[in-house]
Amino acid sequence: MNNILKPDLYDVLCNSTSGDVLFSHAEELFPILRSITGEGIRETLRYAEEKTRNFKLTDIPSGTKVLDWIVPDEWNLKSAKIKNTNGDVLVDVANSSLHIMQYSTAYRGEVSHDVLMQHIFTLPDQPDLIPYKTSYYNKNWGFCISENHRNNLIDPEYRVEIDASLEPGNLTYGEVLIPGDTEEEIFFSIHCCHPSLANDNLSSFSIVLELIRALQMIPRLRFSYRFVFVPGTIGAIAWLSNNFESCHKIRNGLVLSCLGDSGDITYKKSRNEKCSTNHYLQWLIDQEGKGRVLAFEPYGYDERQYCSPGFNLPVGCLMRSPNGTFPEYHTSADNLDFIKPEYLLESFKFIAKFISLVENDVFPVSKFPYGEPQLGRRGLYPSSSGDVSNAQDVPSQMSILWVLNLADGEHSLLDMMIKSGKSFASILSTVDLLSKGDVIHLSQVRCGLSAQI
Amino acid sequence: MNNILKPDLYDVLCNSTSGDVLFSHAEELFPILRSITGEGIRETLRYAEEKTRNFKLTDIPSGTKVLDWIVPDEWNLKSAKIKNTNGDVLVDVANSSLHIMQYSTAYRGEVSHDVLMQHIFTLPDQPDLIPYKTSYYNKNWGFCISENHRNNLIDPEYRVEIDASLEPGNLTYGEVLIPGDTEEEIFFSIHCCHPSLANDNLSSFSIVLELIRALQMIPRLRFSYRFVFVPGTIGAIAWLSNNFESCHKIRNGLVLSCLGDSGDITYKKSRNEKCSTNHYLQWLIDQEGKGRVLAFEPYGYDERQYCSPGFNLPVGCLMRSPNGTFPEYHTSADNLDFIKPEYLLESFKFIAKFISLVENDVFPVSKFPYGEPQLGRRGLYPSSSGDVSNAQDVPSQMSILWVLNLADGEHSLLDMMIKSGKSFASILSTVDLLSKGDVIHLSQVRCGLSAQI
Amino acid sequence: MNNILKPDLYDVLCNSTSGDVLFSHAEELFPILRSITGEGIRETLRYAEEKTRNFKLTDIPSGTKVLDWIVPDEWNLKSAKIKNTNGDVLVDVANSSLHIMQYSTAYRGEVSHDVLMQHIFTLPDQPDLIPYKTSYYNKNWGFCISENHRNNLIDPEYRVEIDASLEPGNLTYGEVLIPGDTEEEIFFSIHCCHPSLANDNLSSFSIVLELIRALQMIPRLRFSYRFVFVPGTIGAIAWLSNNFESCHKIRNGLVLSCLGDSGDITYKKSRNEKCSTNHYLQWLIDQEGKGRVLAFEPYGYDERQYCSPGFNLPVGCLMRSPNGTFPEYHTSADNLDFIKPEYLLESFKFIAKFISLVENDVFPVSKFPYGEPQLGRRGLYPSSSGDVSNAQDVPSQMSILWVLNLADGEHSLLDMMIKSGKSFASILSTVDLLSKGDVIHLSQVRCGLSAQI
Repeated sequence: MNNILKPDLYDVLCNSTSGDVLFSHAEELFPILRSITGEGIRETLRYAEEKTRNFKLTDIPSGTKVLDWIVPDEWNLKSAKIKNTNGDVLVDVANSSLHIMQYSTAYRGEVSHDVLMQHIFTLPDQPDLIPYKTSYYNKNWGFCISENHRNNLIDPEYRVEIDASLEPGNLTYGEVLIPGDTEEEIFFSIHCCHPSLANDNLSSFSIVLELIRALQMIPRLRFSYRFVFVPGTIGAIAWLSNNFESCHKIRNGLVLSCLGDSGDITYKKSRNEKCSTNHYLQWLIDQEGKGRVLAFEPYGYDERQYCSPGFNLPVGCLMRSPNGTFPEYHTSADNLDFIKPEYLLESFKFIAKFISLVENDVFPVSKFPYGEPQLGRRGLYPSSSGDVSNAQDVPSQMSILWVLNLADGEHSLLDMMIKSGKSFASILSTVDLLSKGDVIHLSQVRCGLSAQI
Repeated sequence: MNNILKPDLYDVLCNSTSGDVLFSHAEELFPILRSITGEGIRETLRYAEEKTRNFKLTDIPSGTKVLDWIVPDEWNLKSAKIKNTNGDVLVDVANSSLHIMQYSTAYRGEVSHDVLMQHIFTLPDQPDLIPYKTSYYNKNWGFCISENHRNNLIDPEYRVEIDASLEPGNLTYGEVLIPGDTEEEIFFSIHCCHPSLANDNLSSFSIVLELIRALQMIPRLRFSYRFVFVPGTIGAIAWLSNNFESCHKIRNGLVLSCLGDSGDITYKKSRNEKCSTNHYLQWLIDQEGKGRVLAFEPYGYDERQYCSPGFNLPVGCLMRSPNGTFPEYHTSADNLDFIKPEYLLESFKFIAKFISLVENDVFPVSKFPYGEPQLGRRGLYPSSSGDVSNAQDVPSQMSILWVLNLADGEHSLLDMMIKSGKSFASILSTVDLLSKGDVIHLSQVRCGLSAQI
Repeated sequence: MNNILKPDLYDVLCNSTSGDVLFSHAEELFPILRSITGEGIRETLRYAEEKTRNFKLTDIPSGTKVLDWIVPDEWNLKSAKIKNTNGDVLVDVANSSLHIMQYSTAYRGEVSHDVLMQHIFTLPDQPDLIPYKTSYYNKNWGFCISENHRNNLIDPEYRVEIDASLEPGNLTYGEVLIPGDTEEEIFFSIHCCHPSLANDNLSSFSIVLELIRALQMIPRLRFSYRFVFVPGTIGAIAWLSNNFESCHKIRNGLVLSCLGDSGDITYKKSRNEKCSTNHYLQWLIDQEGKGRVLAFEPYGYDERQYCSPGFNLPVGCLMRSPNGTFPEYHTSADNLDFIKPEYLLESFKFIAKFISLVENDVFPVSKFPYGEPQLGRRGLYPSSSGDVSNAQDVPSQMSILWVLNLADGEHSLLDMMIKSGKSFASILSTVDLLSKGDVIHLSQVRCGLSAQI
């Protein structure tokens, strides 16, 4: 049982990649025009398929009922332009995938200035930026441009050319399962439907690619790891619909989003207040000495679906700057300049710490629970004690005493860290030492001492 | 089931009366010389009988054992005077019902200045005011006058004439039951034994008269409402004795007192710390942004009896300025100038809010608990979302998401308000909307989601 | 049942001794060279045997397995000296029992300055003081002297003469059991292995001698009291080994240490966070208005053994200045000047208060739980109430109301004090009054009201 500990897991994961590698994925994927369906998201998922092993794509035909929703028709855009009457191109989606309102219907014709303005969306308060806008379920067409750009459109007549199709096809999502010793799953969900927005959410996509690659190199994992790449909302709902019976294998889960900007780490709690995911993340952020933990609210990303009352899964949301709180959010300013290799790597390392914590969070059970075991005889204690207050200065001595005292099968390593105030490294190495010294054994589940001896 | 919601109940109740009407009851009842037994309290109760329907009077003969107590003889006073030796009237209960110590024995005779002084009670620190004093169980006679008045009594001899009777009769209390869909009761207890004291407790008496009249106009109520008008202590004990088996139907209860002065609303908690009455009132007072919630203590009004350990009923006490904390308390300054129509009305409205909250505090259960229901299809969500952070500014959108997320049968409307921080109006209208839209159904009791679907 | 209350117990205990008597025990015992085994600790225990009744000595032969430990050989020291080559005595354990490192092996021979220095221990930061040092399980010899003293040892050669034996013998501990009405035990553990250190731990030894004498004079006790005098660590482990099955009779326990210095009272909690020992001590220290309560940690005194996970006994540790926090700790400055009669007496009184609280902490159950009992009829209430707010100023009236209200068999006297904010004296006298007035009865255990009436 001792080999269930992985003291070096964090280092192994962190050494597997770099900020530049993480950033390079975002660069590759940035130009693609993605939406919740269509070739753009499939191209994006195929990129992940190439970079990892056992990547599985799932197609769900348009019209399929998924929970309370219906999978929409597949949308594909060939081109979208606004021209003046001279034929000069004034707006072209080829220049920015944000220029087209997502799910715009096909349109080809002349329109007056007044009519065109009804189909133009801008951000008057951020006159340089292009907004990101969708209209999945209300048929319409529209262009998104900067306010300054709009102010230059002063001609009385324009020609609009939107070459788009909305036809029965498929909704596609991707997933990777890395099997572990148990079927209990550590779950990550990444929305990948946004077009050229770097932080939201190519940042998470890139991090997860490297995380999968690193975990697929680990010979043996305690838990199974599942990574789900979905179009927002409808994709999470489709996945839940397809995994209705089995999704309760999820032990801990994180929706990942906006992980490349300079903000501090933010964890938004799972609805299930007392789930261990909340405890893990609270502790990890406390250890960082910065960042914040937010209460659950039923708004944000796909945690809305995972935390709907019927599922109520132990899934929270990990971000740096939260959605809607930074001026670049859902605008053309969320570009490759907005995310940095160092922040991507920091986020990667934070998730690596979470994984290391989860994998190692076993329940030690003392083999000598009655009184302290005689550590001196086993070479685990100073044999001559002078000023015993010195023991306070030797973290490993106090860590040994703490672990032994709490090794009742009711306290996991996380509990031990919280009660002792000792670091993860200190408790983990102590548990490893005592386990190798045959003084404790390790249980994967909470268990009373009396059930063990 | 949907019709159990009463979104307009608060407005209906508030529109049924006015501060002037509330005040007029106090004016009518102020002059009556009341005590715990006798014609005064019966006259007071008959006033309530005239103003309401189904008012029931209960007589309990003197000598009856009620719990650990014995109903005392009935006390009636015809007149009480102190005269000088010339026959000039110096003190006359006809001028103030407070002049006689309650339950004074009959007395007719000459007394020296010294003896008289042993039977005179004043408030030396408030030399203009007459105190209120009782001696129910210790036979004696006495007069209550102002300190200034007492200082003028400098003759050596006086004639005392107290024409009182203390004979077997009845203790009388009144009550009104307004039946609802369930036998569970919302309970109000009002002590009405005090003579001419306006705030303590004609204020509550007046408010309750109008509350009964308003509730008797509501075609259908979820809970039954019981209003009990009792002489303090012995009356509450008599009522409990007569309702020993059935008093546990009380779901929420309030002893009402001192509701006409300018102080902020005060709620003194029920002994049963976790009862829903405490939660309701805590929340209501939090919403007011003023007022206070006090811990239970076994001193004060008849909550002492309702919260005795054998009953331990979910009954707290609602006041404005609490007993003993204002200088007018139990003096002749607690008169009709001390209470104001506006404060009476404000108290009435506060209780109306409590009733509206209780009646509407059902447990929504989602019919589509797995993932979010597709609101757009049902016209409950903006079909095109641009900057979705706008949804934060649309309370009804967030309210819809909150209600759906918490509609697991474990959260009542109060729970939803507390978790979401949304207003009562917002959550109530949202629950109404979703219920009419057939997205949720409403349970009267806490129930797990799984028991419902 | 009424006679289970002992309102005068605290006074009886406190009047039984004085600071000077307490100090005199420490004086008598100070010079003895004690260790965890040998004649020194046996001589110390025999002193306790003389001063008390029913003192029981237990010998455990060397080599006996006690839990995970082995009882070591018995160590006895006849003399230990360092001489110069002229035969002048430079260091002599006859001058201070601290001069010899505990469990030093026998040695006789010449050594160079360099070799000697490897066997000399000092406190360089406290150059006047002799350290206290042990080497129980690592065979070696050593002397402890002051840094200044060491600096005077400038000769090239010395003669060392340690006349010590380490041979099979016994480990000896002492204990006193004072039987009470129940087998549930109030437990005290005192380590008595240290040589001439006054605060650590002759202070506790002295206090406990007087406490035993006082308790042995009390005709009838509710609980049984056990006092255990053990060599640190190995003694507690030996006692636990010998009482493996019965130690769970311990209802409340305290390890006593360092109770004679000028610091405020310190309570270090039991590992079992919710045990009543923690509640009692927290309340007692709150009442003191000074002192502190520390979280449990698995370091310190023998609470480490009693609170090991297999036993998890409700045992905390009571000190004044905690171990390792004062400069005199484990040095020759922890002498008879460091402890004072007044502090010893104050500690004694604090423990007396704890015992009085525990003995009197019964669960009152009202015989009239429905409504308030009519106290006036029983002479327990003012028969005439004028300004009833006066009752607030009469603690006994409010105490009566509190006790009656909480007399549901769920609230002990401690609970009543916490909820009412009333003093121990006030609640105790009230419970006594109401019990004698036959209004309540007293249960030794928590019990629902309904089970009683």
